[in-house]
Amino acid sequence: AKSYNITLLPGDGIGPEVISVAKNVLNLVGSIQGIEFKFNEMPIGGAAMDLSGVSLPEETLTAAKQSDAVLLGAIGRYKWDKMERHDLKADTSLLHLRGGLKVFANLRPVLVLPQLVDSSTLKKEVVEGVDLMIIRELTGDIYFGKPKGYGTDENGNEIGFNTEVYAAYEIDRVARIAFETARKRSGKLCSIDKANVLEASMFWRKRVIAISVEYPDVELSHMFVDNAAMQLVRNPKQFDTIVTNNIFGDILSDEASMITGSIGMLPSASLAASGPGLFEPIHGSAPDIAGQDKANPLATILSAAMLLKHGLGEKKAADRIELAVLNTLDRGFRTSDIYSLGNKLVGCKEMGEQVLKSL
Amino acid sequence: AKSYNITLLPGDGIGPEVISVAKNVLNLVGSIQGIEFKFNEMPIGGAAMDLSGVSLPEETLTAAKQSDAVLLGAIGRYKWDKMERHDLKADTSLLHLRGGLKVFANLRPVLVLPQLVDSSTLKKEVVEGVDLMIIRELTGDIYFGKPKGYGTDENGNEIGFNTEVYAAYEIDRVARIAFETARKRSGKLCSIDKANVLEASMFWRKRVIAISVEYPDVELSHMFVDNAAMQLVRNPKQFDTIVTNNIFGDILSDEASMITGSIGMLPSASLAASGPGLFEPIHGSAPDIAGQDKANPLATILSAAMLLKHGLGEKKAADRIELAVLNTLDRGFRTSDIYSLGNKLVGCKEMGEQVLKSL
Ligand SMILES: CC(C)[C@H](C(=O)O)[C@@H](O)C(=O)O
Ligand SMILES: CC(C)[C@H](C(=O)O)[C@@H](O)C(=O)O
Repeated sequence: AKSYNITLLPGDGIGPEVISVAKNVLNLVGSIQGIEFKFNEMPIGGAAMDLSGVSLPEETLTAAKQSDAVLLGAIGRYKWDKMERHDLKADTSLLHLRGGLKVFANLRPVLVLPQLVDSSTLKKEVVEGVDLMIIRELTGDIYFGKPKGYGTDENGNEIGFNTEVYAAYEIDRVARIAFETARKRSGKLCSIDKANVLEASMFWRKRVIAISVEYPDVELSHMFVDNAAMQLVRNPKQFDTIVTNNIFGDILSDEASMITGSIGMLPSASLAASGPGLFEPIHGSAPDIAGQDKANPLATILSAAMLLKHGLGEKKAADRIELAVLNTLDRGFRTSDIYSLGNKLVGCKEMGEQVLKSL
Repeated sequence: AKSYNITLLPGDGIGPEVISVAKNVLNLVGSIQGIEFKFNEMPIGGAAMDLSGVSLPEETLTAAKQSDAVLLGAIGRYKWDKMERHDLKADTSLLHLRGGLKVFANLRPVLVLPQLVDSSTLKKEVVEGVDLMIIRELTGDIYFGKPKGYGTDENGNEIGFNTEVYAAYEIDRVARIAFETARKRSGKLCSIDKANVLEASMFWRKRVIAISVEYPDVELSHMFVDNAAMQLVRNPKQFDTIVTNNIFGDILSDEASMITGSIGMLPSASLAASGPGLFEPIHGSAPDIAGQDKANPLATILSAAMLLKHGLGEKKAADRIELAVLNTLDRGFRTSDIYSLGNKLVGCKEMGEQVLKSL
């Protein structure tokens, strides 16, 4: 029987609850498909700070690196945007984890499920059938660029500054993943930049065009980031596969998640050239509902499916999980974030049980 | 009688059509209110390149600087995102114009009019009553930061790079405008940054907090840009006044414009510490419909109203124009971009005539 080592990083808030459910789902699909999972649970975020004073302990990163794939719950113990010191360190731990695993390609599918089409704040006819894949570069750009910091300019003014920088190889490798992805989907790739203003973007565009020669069957288009932010609201169906840099990807993928109206449903995969990938729901740690059995575990379950497919090449097992999630929704089970009249309101654990049943 | 010098920059595409209509509206409101306007029409963009080979001629910038206010149509002769060389230069001319006039505060109101509430791709209950003001810093940030360009890194890799940088005084002055604006509105200001990752953003946040001490009556909150991109779609009514940097403002204000669904309706004002402001519709030059009398002139007419109010302090004349626009919509006149069944479809000129009639 095949066997894989999976690092589980439950993290903070609702993280432990959703990871525990996803673990059960992996175990069951494994026993059906003849796959064994060895789980190694490690601390990260606020939980790690309580134990060791650091948000990404050396042992956690080492364990993650040595495993076949990493499944993360959520990080951050305080309410989003409050900028507590703890939270800042937690956010930094996520950047270190991504950098440490060198997961440069972040895949974020945005799929509007017929069962949940009414969850969106956008009109039904606008979102019905939306199926797009955003590929965000994840280990470069202004997130990691140097020099950065505080200082004074030539006139003695106090300043704060960062550097947006891309090297050719960084663009080329994420572009190739994007072209490969587009090829397996509709064959259309839209690269998003701000090449009318930024040299870093102009360089991005030139490299993407250079790489496009290797993929003559994929139709490449370009769009400016401001226009893209509009078009995602105006007519999201025009997009299939999108590739963009780290900072624009941060903004646009979160905006795009709202097309579905159900952030509790959205998984993500972050892939390296070699070595384990990092898989995580896109929602945060939701400290306000932590420990109350209210979280929606489906985004983490679907992240586990991405782990199987993109991380381990176990496509059959991944498909099984995705079908089980759809079946569970078809049977009317809903956590509170996606609940609508006429359905059955359940908690995190019960939702997990129902997915197991569907499996 | 009062008299003002107004520089008109019709520019490219539909620019000349909408400027010509707005000029008539200014003339009429001037004669009603006892204000004289002296118009000085100057070339910019592709139109200027035909004449002189440069997209922002020295004489145009000088004329603009010497006038009391500047009204711009649109710039760029080719379809958005095509990246023709001409278009790149046209975009650069806009940056030079903003830099030359030192208009550091860009005010972009996003108002959902009851008459047009169905134009949005967002559900009626989500957008009904939305009334927000986005203040975007316009002459700093990664748009103007140095060093920038192309080169090689320490490992010999080809790179493209830009610098995001803010000086304290740049943040302070736009923050003050934002606090003043919020004070006149609901008293709530939301500052948007990425302070969990960027030093430039952390510095932004610190300065905004420092300035907030001068405005104890205004309630200040902070939000990360990725979250803001979500919240604008999820629940735009939670916002009143927003202040943000140049690049985030570029993205978020375009996204927010889609809340209304009618980009042909949205004006903007860009203000300097002293000297003339720059007023322009937020839509582009729309070369596909240029010269066909199809453009919606209302965004430019409303920009003329902002010119009167924010540029010249002629609040009464501004209010008259705004009321005339509402009245024209109430009487059922619509250009094709905002047309819906049961209304009267008109062209650019006729829409202008109807606004004059309402006046
Ligand atoms: C927490 C933060 C550092 C992170 C980012 O900006 O990348 C988050 O917003 C995300 O998108 O995963
Ligand atoms: C044309 C371009 C340079 C400009 C910008 O990015 O500022 C435009 O998008 C805008 O928002 O006015």
